[in-house]
Amino acid sequence: MPIEEGSYVLLATEEGWTKLVKIKRGIQLNTHFGIVKIDEIIGKEFGEYIKTHLGKKMYLLNLTLKDYVYNITRRTQILYPKDIGLILLYCNVTPGSIVVEAGTGSGCLTGILASMVKPNGKVYTYEIREEFIKIARRNIEKLGLEEYVVFKHKDITRGIDEKNVDAVILDMPTPWLVVKHAYKALKGGGVIACFLPTIEQVIKTVSALREEGFIQIEVCESTLRYWKVKRNETRPETFMVAHTGFLVFARKVNRQEVK
Amino acid sequence: MPIEEGSYVLLATEEGWTKLVKIKRGIQLNTHFGIVKIDEIIGKEFGEYIKTHLGKKMYLLNLTLKDYVYNITRRTQILYPKDIGLILLYCNVTPGSIVVEAGTGSGCLTGILASMVKPNGKVYTYEIREEFIKIARRNIEKLGLEEYVVFKHKDITRGIDEKNVDAVILDMPTPWLVVKHAYKALKGGGVIACFLPTIEQVIKTVSALREEGFIQIEVCESTLRYWKVKRNETRPETFMVAHTGFLVFARKVNRQEVK
Amino acid sequence: MPIEEGSYVLLATEEGWTKLVKIKRGIQLNTHFGIVKIDEIIGKEFGEYIKTHLGKKMYLLNLTLKDYVYNITRRTQILYPKDIGLILLYCNVTPGSIVVEAGTGSGCLTGILASMVKPNGKVYTYEIREEFIKIARRNIEKLGLEEYVVFKHKDITRGIDEKNVDAVILDMPTPWLVVKHAYKALKGGGVIACFLPTIEQVIKTVSALREEGFIQIEVCESTLRYWKVKRNETRPETFMVAHTGFLVFARKVNRQEVK
Amino acid sequence: MPIEEGSYVLLATEEGWTKLVKIKRGIQLNTHFGIVKIDEIIGKEFGEYIKTHLGKKMYLLNLTLKDYVYNITRRTQILYPKDIGLILLYCNVTPGSIVVEAGTGSGCLTGILASMVKPNGKVYTYEIREEFIKIARRNIEKLGLEEYVVFKHKDITRGIDEKNVDAVILDMPTPWLVVKHAYKALKGGGVIACFLPTIEQVIKTVSALREEGFIQIEVCESTLRYWKVKRNETRPETFMVAHTGFLVFARKVNRQEVK
Repeated sequence: MPIEEGSYVLLATEEGWTKLVKIKRGIQLNTHFGIVKIDEIIGKEFGEYIKTHLGKKMYLLNLTLKDYVYNITRRTQILYPKDIGLILLYCNVTPGSIVVEAGTGSGCLTGILASMVKPNGKVYTYEIREEFIKIARRNIEKLGLEEYVVFKHKDITRGIDEKNVDAVILDMPTPWLVVKHAYKALKGGGVIACFLPTIEQVIKTVSALREEGFIQIEVCESTLRYWKVKRNETRPETFMVAHTGFLVFARKVNRQEVK
Repeated sequence: MPIEEGSYVLLATEEGWTKLVKIKRGIQLNTHFGIVKIDEIIGKEFGEYIKTHLGKKMYLLNLTLKDYVYNITRRTQILYPKDIGLILLYCNVTPGSIVVEAGTGSGCLTGILASMVKPNGKVYTYEIREEFIKIARRNIEKLGLEEYVVFKHKDITRGIDEKNVDAVILDMPTPWLVVKHAYKALKGGGVIACFLPTIEQVIKTVSALREEGFIQIEVCESTLRYWKVKRNETRPETFMVAHTGFLVFARKVNRQEVK
Repeated sequence: MPIEEGSYVLLATEEGWTKLVKIKRGIQLNTHFGIVKIDEIIGKEFGEYIKTHLGKKMYLLNLTLKDYVYNITRRTQILYPKDIGLILLYCNVTPGSIVVEAGTGSGCLTGILASMVKPNGKVYTYEIREEFIKIARRNIEKLGLEEYVVFKHKDITRGIDEKNVDAVILDMPTPWLVVKHAYKALKGGGVIACFLPTIEQVIKTVSALREEGFIQIEVCESTLRYWKVKRNETRPETFMVAHTGFLVFARKVNRQEVK
Repeated sequence: MPIEEGSYVLLATEEGWTKLVKIKRGIQLNTHFGIVKIDEIIGKEFGEYIKTHLGKKMYLLNLTLKDYVYNITRRTQILYPKDIGLILLYCNVTPGSIVVEAGTGSGCLTGILASMVKPNGKVYTYEIREEFIKIARRNIEKLGLEEYVVFKHKDITRGIDEKNVDAVILDMPTPWLVVKHAYKALKGGGVIACFLPTIEQVIKTVSALREEGFIQIEVCESTLRYWKVKRNETRPETFMVAHTGFLVFARKVNRQEVK
């Protein structure tokens, strides 16, 4: 399937440089490696390359979920693949899932969730800052997944409109104010996930989850270390991200006898 | 949607004990917490509870992807959610993806992949040990996803039958023998992922990937540390899993000019 | 220098089994590897071996600081070499240092400190539980360092008797109650170190250190991962200790102008 | 004991900036925080402060072992306190120890070792690059420990002159070429330690140690994560050093019967 106008393409050099571009006829892109004529990309297949005016090969890659995380426009703190991957498995986000998320932020997690719940699920994403909804919309567009996302310009600490949802995923400063609403919104067995930079947030959130009657409360932190692999020089990279946030997971059950 | 005969239910106590059971009329289950009459579960909703003959509450949970990883029958080394989550994002496994996997093993990763590629994708899984295919089939059944999986009793080091696949995922001792086949099977921009316990395997695999012309070769190891959160006793758990395996990712591109 | 009666010897097999024994004439030691006649050890040199009655070689090793940590009688939580090593460097514990420590516990850290401050320094160690002082004394004896340690059966939260000390090292539940006393006891530029299992203890201690006017407050946690190294099987060990305690360090300065 | 001409003083601001200076009359020091007149420092005590011409307080700290590691002139790769601390405990470096080290490099480890073996031990340090010996000498001078160090402008892979040493510590590219010499130089029970950036070095070194008959071979890697502790903002720092080097330890024993 050849690349068409309107597609998103990840330009990649052999050494690891990448840039996400939207294919538009007549456009030229200036890079450190020379000028790229976008017209030359149209009609190529993913995996092929074009050359800049300096002769540098630029490989044409489709946008994977991992690329999406690292290449979208961001204004907010970063959720990394290591955290998102765990959220998907713990929250059981699969095709057909109904997921509530807050805040939308730059739409990073929103896009990944939309990719996973399609073609018959939906992501309801709450955000109080209107400018972020705009950024997020533009990012989701890059995945072509607008139809699976409902943007809500609303304060989730005031309540969740949806019922019987599979998961509530909170990447926001005060998730403990949402715990009661999440309990009502979730179906039995549904999962709540919170991403929290500080330990004080973790302590408050866990306490609220316990009071509300959630079970299987788990708190963890994930780290990822990259290695440089080259014969006789194989070693971990010198620096790494030491902390993004703690993850808190729990499941809703009915504590009272159902009559 | 009430729980019916034939469903799989995860029994869970408040303290974290879990057991996966298939609902069959007339069966009794002996647990450390007393006898569970399976008949009492039928007609309940997920999230509700039943009581053992000793009065212990057993919550009825649906099987999430995370529960699947920890509760299926296993005979092989463990791939954890921390690793699987990264594989999903790096390999861009989404509804509709065509994925080749080897070895099937107990079907742990197979089940997660099937959950993600449904309803219009497919997982082709290679395994040379016939007894593992049986175990894996029974595990996939618990998710009700048999139709998305093609079991192949074949040696993947001899070749991959499929073409134009989105991802090749290898959890096997000698992935470097599969690199050439993976290159042919993958579509342009497609992703290969390898899960490898030892560093020598990593070195050999990376070397094979470089020779074959793959780009964006990345090697990483992921770790997960759990915390105990309780007012004035908040601290990381004393022990953790220090190593499961290294992850190697790379993408296929066409090094030669396409005419 | 041959091994004499009264010495402490670490028996070690090739596979890593170790046992610390005091050399006494006429004694026999039963081990999983057979009977050891202690008399055979007398007159041998460190590094040599004897054989059990089953023919198993037992190497005779001198007691290093690391062996001391792992082989003494313990009744309390463990401070590991990874933590102790950092304490030595941050607290500048060298021959001649005057160090105050609390609680004594099993005397693990006390013994290491005494080894480092000899021959002209001193360790003042506070402990409120008399039975621990006994255990610690017996452990310090194994190093032959009693003369460098002053055991104090006193509550350090009530005050520190010493003045002008180089370092105050606290491995006890409530170090924030000792911060004021430590400030008075330390000489200018002196270092306080605290070893704390929980994050709430860290938060309280750091807050007390700030109020008291300490500078260079640093909080860290150290981890150690062992590797199994064998050709084609090289990999990190599967399990590790994920947490012992957090370390808090700070230095005393005079905030007020000295006239 | 007031600060005198010729002393080394660590200037420190409240926020963590530090600079090591040698006290010389008549000198002025330009810093980001204003000019420091060194004359004003003479006669002060450690822990007191002076002010720059802009009124900024500069605390006067004595040079701890930790400060030495971070503040000396360096031209070589860094050994951190986390690694050095472990080496001290595993190698049993205490007052009186006889230690052989290679390479000297900038003298970072040499200085720490000298601090620990004084007043009756000695450090023999091998280095083939003469310019490093000069740098190291100047660094050791800052600690005033020249008399405990013997600098040897020699290639340690050719042999070790010393006999009956307590420890051989190797921070150099090819320690496996020194294993035989270390075996001869060490006394029975003595410890060899190697600091190695790459895993291939580890594999070769461990193999050489096994062949030579060393026991208790241990390989580990240590990591240190700093925390930012502030009420309601307590969290690990975002970035950390992910790798400095692997540590390999082993002990010499006599495999042959001693007649």
